[in-house]
Amino acid sequence: MNKSEIDNLINEISKLPGLGRKSSQRIALYLLKNKEKTLLPLIESLNKANQKIVNCENCGNIDMISPCSICNNPKRNNKMVCVLEDVSDLWTFERIGFYRGIYHVIGGSLSAINGIGLDQLSIQKLIKRIEHNNVDEVILALSTTMEGQTTSHVIADKLESLDIEVTRLAQGVPIGGELHFLDENTLNTAFQTRKKII
Amino acid sequence: MNKSEIDNLINEISKLPGLGRKSSQRIALYLLKNKEKTLLPLIESLNKANQKIVNCENCGNIDMISPCSICNNPKRNNKMVCVLEDVSDLWTFERIGFYRGIYHVIGGSLSAINGIGLDQLSIQKLIKRIEHNNVDEVILALSTTMEGQTTSHVIADKLESLDIEVTRLAQGVPIGGELHFLDENTLNTAFQTRKKII
Repeated sequence: MNKSEIDNLINEISKLPGLGRKSSQRIALYLLKNKEKTLLPLIESLNKANQKIVNCENCGNIDMISPCSICNNPKRNNKMVCVLEDVSDLWTFERIGFYRGIYHVIGGSLSAINGIGLDQLSIQKLIKRIEHNNVDEVILALSTTMEGQTTSHVIADKLESLDIEVTRLAQGVPIGGELHFLDENTLNTAFQTRKKII
Repeated sequence: MNKSEIDNLINEISKLPGLGRKSSQRIALYLLKNKEKTLLPLIESLNKANQKIVNCENCGNIDMISPCSICNNPKRNNKMVCVLEDVSDLWTFERIGFYRGIYHVIGGSLSAINGIGLDQLSIQKLIKRIEHNNVDEVILALSTTMEGQTTSHVIADKLESLDIEVTRLAQGVPIGGELHFLDENTLNTAFQTRKKII
């Protein structure tokens, strides 16, 4: 049975993050059932994305212009740089909307297992940016996983010689979290760094 | 902030079955992070699928030729037609591989809620095919949901006047199933249609 193009399509879809064989089959069938309404618009928007979306040469954000609209925005405080692992983290910050500084996306965290070393991350560029732009404060907002923490330490080490403030996000009990769901580590950290209220 | 192309892409991805906003964001970022290795191959295989994959004019299967390779296969018994809701059901039959007849995919089941009536399903075509090809047996292998059962009844009614055998799949306890997980309906059916073994 000559199903090779269909198999190729399912294969290509199953490479996308979070999709297994079964859901990829389902998506492929959905796309092939009514090509005009489903497949063609998807191809069109992928093509447009390919042509128009670029990485910001400064901060690693993705946008339709480079430098991106955040780096370009004169209302943003460019003396304050928030360091993030991924563009999705930047979107989370922007969705909440409280932060008025600029960003630097390093593109992941150090991980021996995944073969991500210092050269794969945009850290040299971060340091150059900080030196060039008289930055006052760098906020390290990486994941609180082992990899994220290691990466934070390495970056903090490299920034030590510069005369700038380096901060990280507070760690503790999430707001709205129930204590009995908390892991040992978080509870321990939250207890050790408890705050005096009276 | 001018993110429209990115938003369009996420929107288009989130129309795919089973994908919510969050997973669509993740997929979009994955595609945009390394366009050459992820986005371009996907576009290529979607384009190829668009050009090469067609619906079988006889049975509704999808394949690279029409009539499809099952309808075209002289080793398949074309006097036996298995009626299915969807191409994914056909793939399940073919994966297991015990069935040597041919298929007819009607494209769904009758559903007032989803606006699927007789005209949306390939039932007229099924009847014409049966009349033309001297079919001996029609196996109704639709879902055992309310919609599937209703559709089975409607098709069976239409086939009554023709001189052919019409069967449906057996209903009962699934092999490897534990009784205490069974729903009331299945257990009741299995009990009422119990088989004498000694």
